[in-house]
Amino acid sequence: MTVAPETEPETAPTPDRALAVLGLLATSEMAAFSRLAGDADVAPLVADRAELCRLGGVAAERLGRLSARIAELGGSLPDAVAPFLGAYSDLDARMPARSWWERLVKAYVGFGVEDDVARLLAEGLDPTTRALVLDVLDDDGHAAFVVERVTAATAADPVLASRLALWARRLVGEALGIVQQILADHPDLRALVDAALPGDAPLQQRLFAVLTAEHTRRMGRLGLTA
Amino acid sequence: MTVAPETEPETAPTPDRALAVLGLLATSEMAAFSRLAGDADVAPLVADRAELCRLGGVAAERLGRLSARIAELGGSLPDAVAPFLGAYSDLDARMPARSWWERLVKAYVGFGVEDDVARLLAEGLDPTTRALVLDVLDDDGHAAFVVERVTAATAADPVLASRLALWARRLVGEALGIVQQILADHPDLRALVDAALPGDAPLQQRLFAVLTAEHTRRMGRLGLTA
Repeated sequence: MTVAPETEPETAPTPDRALAVLGLLATSEMAAFSRLAGDADVAPLVADRAELCRLGGVAAERLGRLSARIAELGGSLPDAVAPFLGAYSDLDARMPARSWWERLVKAYVGFGVEDDVARLLAEGLDPTTRALVLDVLDDDGHAAFVVERVTAATAADPVLASRLALWARRLVGEALGIVQQILADHPDLRALVDAALPGDAPLQQRLFAVLTAEHTRRMGRLGLTA
Repeated sequence: MTVAPETEPETAPTPDRALAVLGLLATSEMAAFSRLAGDADVAPLVADRAELCRLGGVAAERLGRLSARIAELGGSLPDAVAPFLGAYSDLDARMPARSWWERLVKAYVGFGVEDDVARLLAEGLDPTTRALVLDVLDDDGHAAFVVERVTAATAADPVLASRLALWARRLVGEALGIVQQILADHPDLRALVDAALPGDAPLQQRLFAVLTAEHTRRMGRLGLTA
């Protein structure tokens, strides 16, 4: 009888999982770059336009670092992002922002949910990839930028406040639907989220509890009813 | 009789001139960021999209450095770019690119002329601003990116080659017109270009000789008839 060589336990981080997470995040940074550039193009003030350019530059720089790590793990950026590109275009097609304020809130809500999911996904990765992911999720100043502008505008305009609150509710609903779809399509990612959120309730319930709590906190910061 | 305190000669670089050049270049980087992001959005390949994101990030980073120098000289970014924003939107409105290839060539021709003018303007500035401007004009890889893709596409498609050659001729005509208008509107900038291009011929003739020679060289690199 031969003894089987020791293998890694099934729950060990594998390069495939890391590549899936990196691919999702790289897609997210490419989409963020486009979204921020679109926001910059319609910014009413030059100072805001410049700040959105800076934030777009941060997204581009993060994309470069994710891409480098994908290459280190033996993957390629095009292969890594291919499974996720569709999900992002769907959101933009279904929920086009019709004003500067809707654009700001859309990026705020979308980046928030994306970052929360990424934080959960990072937990089960190898230390190098995890450290990179957490570093890429570091505060870049976008949330503060949006909070400052939206709270100033809505303080003087309750109608705008209730319209943006409604918009944010529709956005977070769409965003959660997309997260659900991505996890359904990617068992590797689903397993990572599952491991990061112990509990007896079904995964979707555990996940949505975290994501909606974080979203509610962010809406509070924005001064809008979640 | 009192001796007048020594004053700088009239041709000395003044902060106003530096601010005008920095304002023009900052406008240029903001427009470049938007243009590259728009190109990234329609890039047929993910690798191209990622490279255009990277280049957009470079433009954003350069904008940040120009903006910091503007502040050091006592100016503000919004005031510095205000005189130039219109000229850039005019070009984009008059000459919308209708394809990926037209977009690539448009950025190549436009960035080329802008950089040539900026190099001339830099000569008469204070050493710190001049060094910054020259650093910001450093090759970021955009020209090589366009040359590689356009030469590959036109090698197999002579109709595309002649259409893009015509497009580039129209673009450079528009770009020279905009340069002419900017110099007419800004005597400070006109004086800097005049000093950088000694000669007896009228300024416009001296300037256009340099700009068209450089443009012709770039078209040669692109494999297109200037």
